[in-house]
Amino acid sequence: MLKRIHHVGIVVPSLEDSLRFWRDVMRLPLIKSATIDDQGVRAALLDANGSEVELLEPLSADNGVGRFLARSGGGLHHICFESDDVARELEAARAKGIALIDQRPRPGLAGMICFLHPQATHGVLVEYAQPFAE
Amino acid sequence: MLKRIHHVGIVVPSLEDSLRFWRDVMRLPLIKSATIDDQGVRAALLDANGSEVELLEPLSADNGVGRFLARSGGGLHHICFESDDVARELEAARAKGIALIDQRPRPGLAGMICFLHPQATHGVLVEYAQPFAE
Repeated sequence: MLKRIHHVGIVVPSLEDSLRFWRDVMRLPLIKSATIDDQGVRAALLDANGSEVELLEPLSADNGVGRFLARSGGGLHHICFESDDVARELEAARAKGIALIDQRPRPGLAGMICFLHPQATHGVLVEYAQPFAE
Repeated sequence: MLKRIHHVGIVVPSLEDSLRFWRDVMRLPLIKSATIDDQGVRAALLDANGSEVELLEPLSADNGVGRFLARSGGGLHHICFESDDVARELEAARAKGIALIDQRPRPGLAGMICFLHPQATHGVLVEYAQPFAE
C-alpha cells in the first residue's frame, strides 16, 4: 500500500548553495547528508514534517543525475512514494505493463527502493521506497 | 510555520491519459477535478495520504503551464508547502531578498497561495498554500 509522499528529489549544482535556500530560508531541518559513491551523488535529506526534500548534487557529469543537471540546470527530479512492500509494487507495475528502471528493489538512501521508467509516467520519474526497519 | 508538503504539481498533456497512470496504476484516489479558467488549466487533485498530487493540463499554449508543457513535454512542475500563514511566509521571503512571483497571497485551488520565483530556488518553482477554513 502506498503510504505517503516519502520525498521529492531535487537536483542541484551545489549542495552547499542550495542548503542556503532549503535549510536557511525555508527552514527545513537538515536530517542527514552523505556521499553515495555507487550512485555518484552527494545527497542531503531535509525534514518537511512527515515528508522529506532530498537534494542531489552529482559527483560526475556521466550519471543520470549529472546528465539531468547538464540538460536542465537542475530542478525537480523525482517523486518518491513510501510503500510497505516495494517488491509487490514493482510486481504490480510490471503486471500492468509499466516500464521499469529497476527490475527488483535495491538498497538506497531511503531504504529498499526502485524506480519506474519515466516513459510510463508521462515524463515523471517515480520512485518507491520501503524504509529499513529502525 | 511550514506544516508539510501540501502537493506536488505535475504538468501533463492530457488529464485523462495521466489519470490512467496516477489513479489506476498508482491507485491514488481522485479528490476532485476542476477547470480553472483564470489560470487556463484543467486540474485534478489525487490523495497521497496526507499530501496530494496535482495534475495540470493547460488549456492554452500561452500561459505558464502551457509554456512548460511545450518546453519540456510535461513533468514535475512545482512543490507546494502548507503554511498556517502564507502572508507571513511571503513577508519573510521578501525580507531575505527572495524573488517572488506573487507580491501577495491570492486564492487558488489549494487555498490562499503564492509562488516564489524559481530564480530564488535554483530552478524549483515553490508554492505556499494556506487551506481555506473548512
